[in-house]
Amino acid sequence: MLSKNRIKYIRSLALKKQRTADGVFVAEGRKLVSDLLPHFSARYLAATRQWFDDNPQLASRLPSDCDVVTDDELRRISAQETPQSVLAVFGQQTDDTPLAEAAAAGLCLMLDDIQNPGNLGTIIRLADWFGIRHIYCSHATADVYGPKTVQATMGSLARVHVHYIDLEQGLSALRDSGTPIYGTFLSAPSLYEAPLSRHGIIIMGNEGNGISPAVASHVTRRLFIPSFPPDAPTGESLNVAIATAIICAEFRRRK
Amino acid sequence: MLSKNRIKYIRSLALKKQRTADGVFVAEGRKLVSDLLPHFSARYLAATRQWFDDNPQLASRLPSDCDVVTDDELRRISAQETPQSVLAVFGQQTDDTPLAEAAAAGLCLMLDDIQNPGNLGTIIRLADWFGIRHIYCSHATADVYGPKTVQATMGSLARVHVHYIDLEQGLSALRDSGTPIYGTFLSAPSLYEAPLSRHGIIIMGNEGNGISPAVASHVTRRLFIPSFPPDAPTGESLNVAIATAIICAEFRRRK
Repeated sequence: MLSKNRIKYIRSLALKKQRTADGVFVAEGRKLVSDLLPHFSARYLAATRQWFDDNPQLASRLPSDCDVVTDDELRRISAQETPQSVLAVFGQQTDDTPLAEAAAAGLCLMLDDIQNPGNLGTIIRLADWFGIRHIYCSHATADVYGPKTVQATMGSLARVHVHYIDLEQGLSALRDSGTPIYGTFLSAPSLYEAPLSRHGIIIMGNEGNGISPAVASHVTRRLFIPSFPPDAPTGESLNVAIATAIICAEFRRRK
Repeated sequence: MLSKNRIKYIRSLALKKQRTADGVFVAEGRKLVSDLLPHFSARYLAATRQWFDDNPQLASRLPSDCDVVTDDELRRISAQETPQSVLAVFGQQTDDTPLAEAAAAGLCLMLDDIQNPGNLGTIIRLADWFGIRHIYCSHATADVYGPKTVQATMGSLARVHVHYIDLEQGLSALRDSGTPIYGTFLSAPSLYEAPLSRHGIIIMGNEGNGISPAVASHVTRRLFIPSFPPDAPTGESLNVAIATAIICAEFRRRK
């Protein structure tokens, strides 16, 4: 049985301000919640009787604050079109690996004002697939803990750390380090002819405007995803998550 | 000035049944509408005074049935969160290139029950980028003319033909043709070690369940997108549009 205050509180977590103040986020659905439970500290969980019955192996990971709810009650707190048996409030996690350290140790991603929460979630999911452990986002990038982003990550939040930093400041500090800084542009050398390293930073730009000029000025290796056939008329660009995937796949193909 | 009947009619086009009966679809936004106007026959267009003033070069392509509307009126007929100056109703186009012909002439895509309209639109957009002119969808795949799909194509509908067919029937007819039929699975030979041809069919499966067993039985060349590093824990899969992009990019890289 859900109290009115509880309903009000969970709904308030749709707002970034409230999530940040409390250091929490909401995740929904059987698969996502069970994927996150081993990695994030759950503060609260609401699920149907059936869910509790089906998941005895998760009992030791459940928070002390749990509610058994009906489908109707779940619908009242869910941000999903079709609520799926379980909703949990988890504590956010912070990781303070500095950009310089992450970029020296392996490949990391940098997102310059990615606006769409679904794109951000999809990028986190593909970063996980390609063994990219750190994503550095501009402050204007969508919130990693927003409901649409969390749902699109499909549990990859457990393995990928998302940081919000001042990109120019971060890149300026790397200026003399020799760290390769890759950026994708609509006119540049082909990805397939460019030398690619095993560490460094791959910068992806905003959906409509690409990489901002101030950030682009730090790029040391420009890349372009060639269309096919090269001279045929086509769309002006690829979706940013699609472009990120093609680039990360090529880095990993070359190993 | 919009009539009540007009508002009611345009809203009714949110339903596939109505769109199919009338052979039309709705597109919104400055860029999308101007990209589609040269390729599709516009039946109706509503835009702000500013839009008409800004686009004198489009005058010859406008339908005889046009309305000058206010932002408020546009909001009443728009399916978008933030309506953008212009909405148009276009006639659907049919292309009857048979699967066998398209697959013999070049690469084509086949979608086995892709549910998410945004995924479908993103796949159409990337097919355009990679010069794939035909996509064959199962009848249960999302409707290409749904508003979310149309918006996600970013105008690529002008160059990519989307067909709805019985996949098993289509594939059965190809059985002895020697046409390569590729399918992506979570366990198969690496995409990067597989021979790839310049023609044939690439099948992509449903978001949750992958390629259905009946369709999978027609696949002659199984592919897998390797994660990195190969033995590290990762998510269970990639988003279907992301997987499609990585596969199409690799076909085109090899030329």
